[in-house]
Amino acid sequence: MKNNAMFESVYKEIFPFWENLNAEDRNFICQNSLALTYPKGTHIHDGNECSGVIFVKSGCLRVYILSDTGKEVTLYRLYSGDMCMLSASCVLQSITFDVFIDAEENSECYVISGPAFANISERNKDIKIFALETAVSRFSDVMWVMQQILFMSMDKRLAVFLSDEISRTGSDTITLTHEQIARYMGSAREVVSRTLKYFASEGIVEVSRKGIKILDKKRLRELTL
Amino acid sequence: MKNNAMFESVYKEIFPFWENLNAEDRNFICQNSLALTYPKGTHIHDGNECSGVIFVKSGCLRVYILSDTGKEVTLYRLYSGDMCMLSASCVLQSITFDVFIDAEENSECYVISGPAFANISERNKDIKIFALETAVSRFSDVMWVMQQILFMSMDKRLAVFLSDEISRTGSDTITLTHEQIARYMGSAREVVSRTLKYFASEGIVEVSRKGIKILDKKRLRELTL
Repeated sequence: MKNNAMFESVYKEIFPFWENLNAEDRNFICQNSLALTYPKGTHIHDGNECSGVIFVKSGCLRVYILSDTGKEVTLYRLYSGDMCMLSASCVLQSITFDVFIDAEENSECYVISGPAFANISERNKDIKIFALETAVSRFSDVMWVMQQILFMSMDKRLAVFLSDEISRTGSDTITLTHEQIARYMGSAREVVSRTLKYFASEGIVEVSRKGIKILDKKRLRELTL
Repeated sequence: MKNNAMFESVYKEIFPFWENLNAEDRNFICQNSLALTYPKGTHIHDGNECSGVIFVKSGCLRVYILSDTGKEVTLYRLYSGDMCMLSASCVLQSITFDVFIDAEENSECYVISGPAFANISERNKDIKIFALETAVSRFSDVMWVMQQILFMSMDKRLAVFLSDEISRTGSDTITLTHEQIARYMGSAREVVSRTLKYFASEGIVEVSRKGIKILDKKRLRELTL
């Protein structure tokens, strides 16, 4: 019951339907919840499993797709307060694609069992609507990524990536390898290296063994527009 | 009231919630419906408008995204019996991206006004769930397209496109230009032409001024696997 109180205090904040559930249903969800800590780098969810509904309490999870040949494309990241439905394919029958999820930082999560959530969302329309709306809002994120990849020039895409990265980490230096950046962006290492070389020649960045240092944030920002 | 009967006879088949609506709500939906005929080539929906919920009675609509520079990528096609929610952005607040819709054949559609559908879906949870589920199922289609574009080799993608096209039209000859194929696939004309030249050298297709004739369906199919 101690755990139940811990889950309840969070669920009443994040679930718009929580107050309308009866005590039995609230208890059912808490009983089927786990508090899990994932060290940085953990593979949390692997394609077609039904890992459950994941709520991120702290840290950062990366959601991506993976090709047969190992190529990855990041769809979006989940931060503190975010919720993932795509990891619970057994809840939403209409989701027929597979995503992969890694912990990008040490992350604390609450995970509600997929079958339990599916069960209760069949009985309660508000929960069903919440689950579907959460999925649909990610649809918009994914379309944004798709438009970036398909339509934006590499200059602009890399500038957007670097800008996001420095505002995310709060540091002017990005310690990712060119290979890692390429993987995050769904591009090739050569293309990333070539574009970085051009940015360096323009005095926008400095590339060294320590990483990529942003020298001119103003011009980097202009490139993202 | 004659029109109402026409709409009702279709809506009771396609809407799982129809029988549970009261007469007033059923009437409200019918009163806010239009039967429209779009000649082939019509631009039906343009980005951020709220054109309404479109039901395809006959014909074929193409749903695509468009870049600032005019580059298109086809997301999916809608055929007889299909329904489009992405054209009713005022119904689903969580859809924040713009799609474009053209009639690819002469098409008869029933269009329910976006604000009317939004109004009734706020009052009726089953309608809301139907709208969200329709949108989420398209999410899966779009992910498939994205994986194709990002992960598949051009050989395979073009083979899939040509196979789909001949089964769609029922003809062995594809009369699209290389430019059009490139646009549909989100690729460049040069890349399509180069790949077709390779297919021709392998005896899979014959490229002439009349179009692209498929000579060896078996090998084309093998390329799609």
